[in-house]
Amino acid sequence: MKKTRKKKVRKTQSLRIIPLGGLGEVGRNMMLLEYRKDILIIDMGFRLPEEEMLGIDYIIPNISYLEGKQERIVGAVFTHGHYDHIGAIPYLIDRLGYPPLYASKLTTGIILKRQADFPHLAPLDITEIKDKTKINLGPFKIEFFHQNHNIPDNFGLFIETPVGNIVNTSDFKFDKNPINDTPTDFNRLKELGKRGVLLLMSDSTGAEEEGHSLSEKQIFQNLEEIFKNSKGRIIAATFSSLINRIQQIITLSEKYRRKVAIDGYTMKMNVEICRNLRYIKTQRGTLISPKEIKKYPDSRITFLCTGAQGEESAILMRIANGEYPFLKIKKGDSVIFSSSVIPGNERTVQFLKDNILRQGAIVFHYKMMDIHAGGHAQQEELKKMIRIMKPKFFMPIHGQYSMLVAHAQLAKEEKIKEKNIVVAENGQVIELTPERIRLTKEEVPANYVMVDGLGIGDVGDIVLRDRQTLANGGMFVIIAAVDRKTGKVKGSPDIISRGFVYLKESKDLLKEARKKVVRIVSKATGSGATVNWIYIKDEIKKQIGAFLFKKTKRRPMILPVVIEV
Amino acid sequence: MKKTRKKKVRKTQSLRIIPLGGLGEVGRNMMLLEYRKDILIIDMGFRLPEEEMLGIDYIIPNISYLEGKQERIVGAVFTHGHYDHIGAIPYLIDRLGYPPLYASKLTTGIILKRQADFPHLAPLDITEIKDKTKINLGPFKIEFFHQNHNIPDNFGLFIETPVGNIVNTSDFKFDKNPINDTPTDFNRLKELGKRGVLLLMSDSTGAEEEGHSLSEKQIFQNLEEIFKNSKGRIIAATFSSLINRIQQIITLSEKYRRKVAIDGYTMKMNVEICRNLRYIKTQRGTLISPKEIKKYPDSRITFLCTGAQGEESAILMRIANGEYPFLKIKKGDSVIFSSSVIPGNERTVQFLKDNILRQGAIVFHYKMMDIHAGGHAQQEELKKMIRIMKPKFFMPIHGQYSMLVAHAQLAKEEKIKEKNIVVAENGQVIELTPERIRLTKEEVPANYVMVDGLGIGDVGDIVLRDRQTLANGGMFVIIAAVDRKTGKVKGSPDIISRGFVYLKESKDLLKEARKKVVRIVSKATGSGATVNWIYIKDEIKKQIGAFLFKKTKRRPMILPVVIEV
Repeated sequence: MKKTRKKKVRKTQSLRIIPLGGLGEVGRNMMLLEYRKDILIIDMGFRLPEEEMLGIDYIIPNISYLEGKQERIVGAVFTHGHYDHIGAIPYLIDRLGYPPLYASKLTTGIILKRQADFPHLAPLDITEIKDKTKINLGPFKIEFFHQNHNIPDNFGLFIETPVGNIVNTSDFKFDKNPINDTPTDFNRLKELGKRGVLLLMSDSTGAEEEGHSLSEKQIFQNLEEIFKNSKGRIIAATFSSLINRIQQIITLSEKYRRKVAIDGYTMKMNVEICRNLRYIKTQRGTLISPKEIKKYPDSRITFLCTGAQGEESAILMRIANGEYPFLKIKKGDSVIFSSSVIPGNERTVQFLKDNILRQGAIVFHYKMMDIHAGGHAQQEELKKMIRIMKPKFFMPIHGQYSMLVAHAQLAKEEKIKEKNIVVAENGQVIELTPERIRLTKEEVPANYVMVDGLGIGDVGDIVLRDRQTLANGGMFVIIAAVDRKTGKVKGSPDIISRGFVYLKESKDLLKEARKKVVRIVSKATGSGATVNWIYIKDEIKKQIGAFLFKKTKRRPMILPVVIEV
Repeated sequence: MKKTRKKKVRKTQSLRIIPLGGLGEVGRNMMLLEYRKDILIIDMGFRLPEEEMLGIDYIIPNISYLEGKQERIVGAVFTHGHYDHIGAIPYLIDRLGYPPLYASKLTTGIILKRQADFPHLAPLDITEIKDKTKINLGPFKIEFFHQNHNIPDNFGLFIETPVGNIVNTSDFKFDKNPINDTPTDFNRLKELGKRGVLLLMSDSTGAEEEGHSLSEKQIFQNLEEIFKNSKGRIIAATFSSLINRIQQIITLSEKYRRKVAIDGYTMKMNVEICRNLRYIKTQRGTLISPKEIKKYPDSRITFLCTGAQGEESAILMRIANGEYPFLKIKKGDSVIFSSSVIPGNERTVQFLKDNILRQGAIVFHYKMMDIHAGGHAQQEELKKMIRIMKPKFFMPIHGQYSMLVAHAQLAKEEKIKEKNIVVAENGQVIELTPERIRLTKEEVPANYVMVDGLGIGDVGDIVLRDRQTLANGGMFVIIAAVDRKTGKVKGSPDIISRGFVYLKESKDLLKEARKKVVRIVSKATGSGATVNWIYIKDEIKKQIGAFLFKKTKRRPMILPVVIEV
């Protein structure tokens, strides 16, 4: 009896860490800290679908574990305003019972703007925090600290918990010369480290990259070279989320007396939010509308837009295709791709670049010169963070599994003991006490939840598999009206096929298929016994499938419909 | 009269160069040289489809221009045995009327092996050539010269034509220390240059890469480090076409007393061809079958396989998924990805790497250390080629448009006059005389011809667009049996839907859709006038489409079927 009690006490004294997304993947960041009955949420991000997830819009974290525990959620804190940290809020907040949210001014602005697209939801309970703000949420005392990234108002979290202090770095890089932001305050970081850090959870996105990330100042200088030498228009494409890069382009345009026209839905929206909140500064008269471009000489124009990833409907693609009304590429234009290429987008970006080059523009991209810097610390910075925080335990977060493994390796190099490092994945439950960190055997659901249009989580494996079959071979629907009395097919079966063969040139194939169907049905119904329609449909599927494969080496989805008339 | 004749004479004296593939893309290389009535073909490659070309196997060159000109083809020469130079032969050769083919011993071996998969074709008329072989085909005198690449038996072409000498470099790089091949013979190249080169057509694949390509010797040394330090099994994945890399792995395995098991259909086939022709050398007893792996200690095993690109059905993917019977990944294994990642495959390669790391192996890939070198000359080599050949005219070949542009820029740096450089694209006709090179306004068809199963060119835009619609939103077939006499729908309409929503959880949606269909039909047939079935189908499509979009924000392909009974 005594023993059991002791065990129980020890168990309730450990802190449970449950990553629901962002570990073993880039994006969809969400994590829970659970102490006794209290649960703290850190971030609620989404990610974009994999290639084979046809038709899917986003992937969001699975929150089944929180079902029925809504009362226990003490709050949710957000590190910064990128969608891989806030994008899932509209899809999750109702099911979470609208817990109190805490975010910086800019992050709050972006969250609220997006929320306006979901008018059926209740208003959010959101509180603005600043650098050094401290809040108490149940047993968690959270202090926000400034970190450089490529969006302003980005905060790491110093969390005092009953088992010890935890640091979550947020996405970060060290930058002594940032743009549109204050430099990293190393003294502040060291002061945090001196308070004693039991567990450091640090951003692994750059853990496979050697050295130190580029300073935004270096990027600025390289971009300035382009501005200095360009006599025609400058067309700059970047991510709409790279607020600091947008500021750089605007500042350079002002320096070189260029007006700035901006287009692209998210880009315009972000610039509007940031200007209202004073995170982007523009001189009076700098911004013009795209319609006004033609009023100014080419040397006085900067055009800032989305689409550096080759997104199909983004402005840069429309420009490259000659479909954008206010600007056509011509000789003398300089086009800047100021962003990295997201894995999977290489081919479309190449297509876009080629198309722009064909029209006579000069193209600058990050492989030619350093006109883009990632927002994530690289190996030397990551090691420095470990040296500053001197944690007892270490857990890499944010990134593909290979990045987590590489980050764990860096921690080893910084003399963190192997047994004190946990490489965890989504859904695993980690137990933390002052003495040890442990990957338990417990797992909570953390599989992908897919958003497709208005549906959240309703597209599962079956629907996706069907989409893949349809994508590869199209479909082949056979409709046979069968006479109830004679068991014979009335007239000729209808065939509806799409995405399989070009029908106009396949008349013989269709004719033969129809004949086969008539034969299959007659044979099965001819005996006079009770007709087994399921068997007939199966036979049609099997035999017509084999016939079409033999003739074409393709496998359309075959759907037989038998109507008794 | 005199004037016209003069014009005609000048015209017939120019050589026409017609690239049918490989310019503005990587792969699908094929080019025509046409002088008066004679046509020479250089290479017949294929390429892999773009992401949005759902279900397509390969893309091959469009040879419509040669239709009816079969008698004028004097022959086809092949530079080397990679599929982007020979892969389209089985799909084109019949339509070309089986012209005589000329290829090196290894290239011939690969061509003939592949041809065996197309038993319905006639035997090829193929002649083996060697380094320095000279052949005369109509007005073209072709001399083959050795070039380094990553497959042996690769030849550049020195072509004497009535207008002057043309050099086609083939894919190449300069390597003083190649593996499994002789070093670049610069004296030979210089000798060719001294004969006078009117036009140089040079490989642009590496034109955006600075400096010099890595020597295979460097790769060998880095691979040797891994062999020296590995105590467990070595699993090496590479392209099956990288014959020289395969030789390196075998040689290192022999040096470090490892047996080599090989698996993967194309890898085994290529090793077999190369061993038979003595292009890959193995000691007696080196090769074992995958079944025998378990007979040897881990430190004595190298496993060589395909799948470094994350191809779904390749051996490495099966190993990573635990589905390969003869080898399961375990701690102590070293997995080498000795190949670059083809644009578009980044995500699947990352998935594969992560999966292998999770199972405890160490992973080596080309981003961590130089264990892969491309087969293509980089900027310094390309400039050197131009300096050696000293051509009057220059035309970049093989590569994306941005690569051709970058290569043209290098030629300018090497003092080729801008007007003497032609950046051409597939299907454009280039006229060459001793005095000038000119991009004419004439264009021949060079669009993609898609191979899907047994169909060549029958999958066009309509079929592809349908596949994309089906891929994104699935399909929704509505079948209504309508009573001929009353114009009313008999019973409830059938709905067949796949890839749209999960049907079991969408019963209300389907019920409502059925009701709507009944209403649409009744309304249209109720008047007693002649029934316009096309109108009814259109209405069903429109109204049900709008209804489903409103309810789900998805757009399945809607196919109404009305059967009169």
